[in-house]
This record gives sequence, C-alpha cells and structure tokens, in this order.
Amino acid sequence: MAYIVLDVDKNNRFLAACRGETVDRVPVWFMRQAGRSLPEYREIRGVGSILEILTDPELSAKITLQPVERHGVDAAVLYSDIVVPLKAFHVDVDIVQGVGPVVSEPVRTKNDLAKLIDKKSDPDFESLNETVSIVSKKAEVPLIGFAGGPFTVACYLVDGRPSKNWSETRKLFITEPELFGQLLDYLCDISFESAKKQIQSGASAIQIFDSWIGSLSRKEYLEIVMPHTALLFRRLAKLNVPLIYFGLGTAEILDLMALSGPDVISVDHQVPLGLAWERISKSWENNNVSEFAIDAVSQHLPKAIQGNLNPLNCLVGWKYLEPLALDVLKEGMALRTGMERESSGNSSAGYIFNLGHGVLPETNPDNLTKIVELIKREGIY
Amino acid sequence: MAYIVLDVDKNNRFLAACRGETVDRVPVWFMRQAGRSLPEYREIRGVGSILEILTDPELSAKITLQPVERHGVDAAVLYSDIVVPLKAFHVDVDIVQGVGPVVSEPVRTKNDLAKLIDKKSDPDFESLNETVSIVSKKAEVPLIGFAGGPFTVACYLVDGRPSKNWSETRKLFITEPELFGQLLDYLCDISFESAKKQIQSGASAIQIFDSWIGSLSRKEYLEIVMPHTALLFRRLAKLNVPLIYFGLGTAEILDLMALSGPDVISVDHQVPLGLAWERISKSWENNNVSEFAIDAVSQHLPKAIQGNLNPLNCLVGWKYLEPLALDVLKEGMALRTGMERESSGNSSAGYIFNLGHGVLPETNPDNLTKIVELIKREGIY
Repeated sequence: MAYIVLDVDKNNRFLAACRGETVDRVPVWFMRQAGRSLPEYREIRGVGSILEILTDPELSAKITLQPVERHGVDAAVLYSDIVVPLKAFHVDVDIVQGVGPVVSEPVRTKNDLAKLIDKKSDPDFESLNETVSIVSKKAEVPLIGFAGGPFTVACYLVDGRPSKNWSETRKLFITEPELFGQLLDYLCDISFESAKKQIQSGASAIQIFDSWIGSLSRKEYLEIVMPHTALLFRRLAKLNVPLIYFGLGTAEILDLMALSGPDVISVDHQVPLGLAWERISKSWENNNVSEFAIDAVSQHLPKAIQGNLNPLNCLVGWKYLEPLALDVLKEGMALRTGMERESSGNSSAGYIFNLGHGVLPETNPDNLTKIVELIKREGIY
Repeated sequence: MAYIVLDVDKNNRFLAACRGETVDRVPVWFMRQAGRSLPEYREIRGVGSILEILTDPELSAKITLQPVERHGVDAAVLYSDIVVPLKAFHVDVDIVQGVGPVVSEPVRTKNDLAKLIDKKSDPDFESLNETVSIVSKKAEVPLIGFAGGPFTVACYLVDGRPSKNWSETRKLFITEPELFGQLLDYLCDISFESAKKQIQSGASAIQIFDSWIGSLSRKEYLEIVMPHTALLFRRLAKLNVPLIYFGLGTAEILDLMALSGPDVISVDHQVPLGLAWERISKSWENNNVSEFAIDAVSQHLPKAIQGNLNPLNCLVGWKYLEPLALDVLKEGMALRTGMERESSGNSSAGYIFNLGHGVLPETNPDNLTKIVELIKREGIY
C-alpha cells in the first residue's frame, strides 16, 4: 500500500501528527524549549521571579517565540509554569529561583482546602490571554498551551515546595483519600479553566504536565488519580484541540494514562517507543475495564506518541548525540509501519519527536538546532 | 499436591527462600534496617562520619545487631556503605553527613583511572572482617554482606558526589565507553574482593546494591553495564552463597538483570511482584540471547524475588500501613502458587519480604516491628 501523504503545510504538521494522520515528515519540538537554555533568554530575563515576567505579555511572548526562531521547531510552547493558574485563582504561590514553586500555606486539612475553594472566583487570566494571543498571531507554527495534571499540582500544594519523594502528599492521599479527591477536583477545575482560556486566545493544542504520577503504583494511579484526570480529559475534549498527556517514569501505567482519554501520550526515555505504544494500544485488551468506575474510562485511545530522547544525552558533543537522536527518530517512525501493516487503527501511531523530559539549563542550544535539522533531513516519511 | 515443608530452622529460612526452596513462612528483613531510623543507634552514633564508626568493629557490630534484636527480622545486614571498599583500596572518599559519599578527585580521564589502579593493592579490610566476624558469631540469623554494583559506585566516582541525574557519569560512558568499561572492571574487582572477605569472615549471603541502574535504558544496561555485572556474578557464584541484586526503577530491565546471574532480584515498589516475576522468568524467552556477548549471559535464572513495600508508606500510622503491607505480602506469597501449578522451575519463585528501597530516617521503628509481627502471623505458607 502506498503512503497517502496529505497536503500538510508546516502550520499543520504537528497537529495532524497528534491526530494520528499521515504527514510528510515527523514534527519536532522540545519540552522547556523556551527559557533557561537560551542565551537570548538569559539576556532579557532580568533578576525577578518568573511570575513577574509572566505579568508582561510582550516579554513572555518574545521568550515563547525565541526557540521557534532559533531552532525552527514545528510548534511553540507557552513559556509559563504549571502553578500559574493557581496564582490566577489567588493562591499565594511563588517560583523561587533555584528552588521551584513554593506555596506560603501548604494544603493538608479540610480547612486549608476550604480556604482555597473560597478564593476560587474571578480568576485573573489577563496576562496569560494576552501572551497567548500575541504568540498565536505572530508564530508561523501552532502554539501548545499547557496546564498541570491535578496530581502533580497537588504535590506542590501539599508538600509546599519541590520534594524528592512528595512524602506529605502521599501521607495525605493514604490517610485522607476523600479530602485528597476534593483537592484533585478543585485542581481539575483550575487546570480546565486555564486551558480553556488558552484555547480561546489562540492555543492549538494542550499538554497536561503530570510529571510526578510515575511515583504512584498502578493501583494508586487507578484509584486515586485516574477518576479525576479522566474527567479532566473528557471536559477538555469538548474544546476540540489535540490533548497531550505527559508524566515521568510512567512505563508501568501507560495503559491507564491512555484510558484517561488524551490524544497523544508523551513518554520519557525509560521505555522504548515501540514497547510504550504496545502498552498504550493494548489498554482495553489488558485491563478488565468493567472493574473501573465507568466515568474513569475514555471511549477512545490515543492516536499518537511523543518522545523520548533522554535530555541528558543532549549534554554531549553532536558527534555522540547524533546517533542517539537518530535511534529515537527511527523507532518513532517505525510506529507508522504498524499503521500500514495492520487494519486496526490501534496498532499504529502518529509520532512527534521530543525529549523524554524538559531541556536542561546547561544544554548547548546548538545541539537542539542540529536535532531539528536532523529530523528535517531524516524524518521524511 | 501437598506442600513439602522442609525442616527449616530460623537460621535457615531466609537462605532457603533465596534458593527458591519451600519454607514454613515468608522471611523478612529491611534494607537500611540498621542505623538512622533507630533511637538506640542515634544514642550511640556520636557526631563523626560513618566511616569513623566503621573503623570500630565492636560499635559497627552492635549497630548491625540492633534491628535484629528490636524487630526480630530473619536476617542481619551489615551496617556499612557501598563506598567502603573504595576506602579499603585507598581511594580518598568521605561520607559527608546530609550529603552522602564525596570523593576528593572525581575520576573522568585515563589518568584519573590510572591513579586508582596504581593504589589497588594491599587493601585494608581489617575492621570489616572483624565486624562481620563478631556479628556472625553473635547473631541468631544469617548476616547479609554487601557490595556496590559497579555502575552505581562509578556514579559516585565520576560525578564525585550524589547527583540528581549523574550527568557526568553519563557523559563519560557516552564519550569514552572504553575508559568507562575499564573503570567498571576495576570496580568489579573492588566489589568482588570486599564480598569475598565478608563471606570468608562469616557472611551468609551477598546483596549487590546497584541503585542507579534504573537511570539507564535497556540498550545502555545491556551494552555498558551487563557485561561487567555478569562477570561479577559469575565470580561471586563460586563463593557459594545466595546473591541478591538490587536496583531502583528497574521494571524495564528486570529480564536483563536476571540474565546477569543473581539468585534473587530485589524489586522496587514501581512494579507489582507478579509482573516483576513474569519478566524475570521469561528472560530467556523474550531475549535473543545469541545476540549478546556470550560472556554476558548467565546459565541460570533467579530463584526468588525480594520486595517491595514503598518505604514512604511506612511513614503513616499502622492502621493505614497494615493493609498496604498485607497486599504486598499476599502478592509475594502468590508467587509460590505458580511453583505448584507448573512443572517448570522458572514459573515459581521464592519470596522474601522487604521494602522497595531503604528505610527512611523519619520512619517510626514501631511500624517496622509491626510489619515483622504481621509477616510472622500472616506469612505462614
């Protein structure tokens, strides 16, 4: 069977791949492509908190566009942070340089949660809307908006600051599962509202960053988190843009993430892309779905996979990095062969080249530019 | 078919389980059971470095025996550290409180390695031998000695101190694979010599702590690490004690770890025990072993599995912890059902209850004692 190559212009390649459609070549972008690894960012960044920069839409838009101009990636991703929507809902959170998100009052009791819910009105999304609007007008590629996965934002709220093991969060979901569920409900609302605003202002896709779900066992993800993420994805699906779901160390829960309802799963470098897709595409086969709460299972499986070059591998010279990037690209491109071999849509996958996690600050940006050139050369179907 | 219960005395239960033999009940011990979580340890610990304590065999032996007396576990594990054998071979390494192992001169060049190899003679194992000898005479349960996995000790030597992502180590094995291989050879020798001394002084089993191998992809483990660990296990096998192999985040490489040749694999809390054993027992089936360097594949597969309660779960009250510990116990005990159902030895497993990683310092030791009581009550076959 011959390839059916759609007439995909560069504005559409990334979005088409997210939908599992046939495209002319593999699209590429990098998580955390905007910001810390770029000298032109450090030049204009100043000394304030990221949250201050984010109140300046012109500056935020400029930072968002820098990597698109420099690397020639196929998508822009909003320069922001997953705790920004909390800030919009009047939660006292700061992003401390060298530390990360810090909340002034960690949320660990009914009373703490009640206080959050009390403040949950009249969100201030003005700067965010404005930034998204500027970028989506200027960029020649689609803009990916984003929001935090409810579990991961809960980690910051409950532990109060970045933690090696999120022990306070774990204590809370073990000892107060109902309260924890209410917190996740609240956070789903926050993430949904933020994503909706981004789409209304011009974002063409949404990535849900749920970085820390890999710290959960299958049973924990299934019982504690999945009922909430599944509802979040169901609500987001009505907004009609591709939805990407990302977490770290998720090899053992990829099938459950798939059943939560995203269009694309972004996998880290710990699992080969082929194996990851096998697990995703067999989500229905390998789970007794009737055992799940009915609300927690999506009607459709993902259509594409994104990933998964180890960002640490970008720290070496190009001659060492090139074969490693090429290996990942070939694995990703092979996922479409499945599409041609088998009639079932589930056995094939769209593919988007990315890292397994965010670009590290110490990365030589030339390496990223060279990866994009490599994909444009070797990623043609 | 009826159970064949061997006449296992308490001194032998742990060792018999390691060999996959039928035992009266599940044996239990905890990684890091000696030391930091015990008040009686903090009382006698003093303010010096752990390395100073380790020069005092009477004190080290006492610390090793404390958890055996308090919790009634089925095995003692030497109070020591994986960098201690480096110290014995005259490497300038310290264990800094609140930081971890720090080496004065990180090893990143041929010249650095040559210096290490130059010093590699007349090791000083006197205190270690003496400690092991005291413990193995006093303890009523077997003593587990230990050594570092070559990759994990290399991480400390190359990065120079604990790191979030071991980026220097990764840079070295990507850009200088031959040099890195020579470093692993050196470290295999060091670990082998240390383990041999411990066995000669009375240790009844050896656990190889290779904590950071989970940061490697399958291909990286297979090509870079496995040829060395496989040779290490082959050499250790001649010493005729059970060999346990531990790493964190190893769900995707359990089959390769199995082919390295240990008797027991210790798995972390990210993978259910049943699934872990499935991957281990299908190591031959699921790999084209003829593709491996012939020296890198063991002739026998593991006979037992150890794990895997999340140590973070020990931070909550007993009423919450008990059902979580019981779940793990039941999963582990079910592995023997496989042994009875199927004729092939590979489909069944001995089982040793443990955590998925070390006891956390802030753990209430009463929780650990209660886990041991639970195993003694509910872990009877």
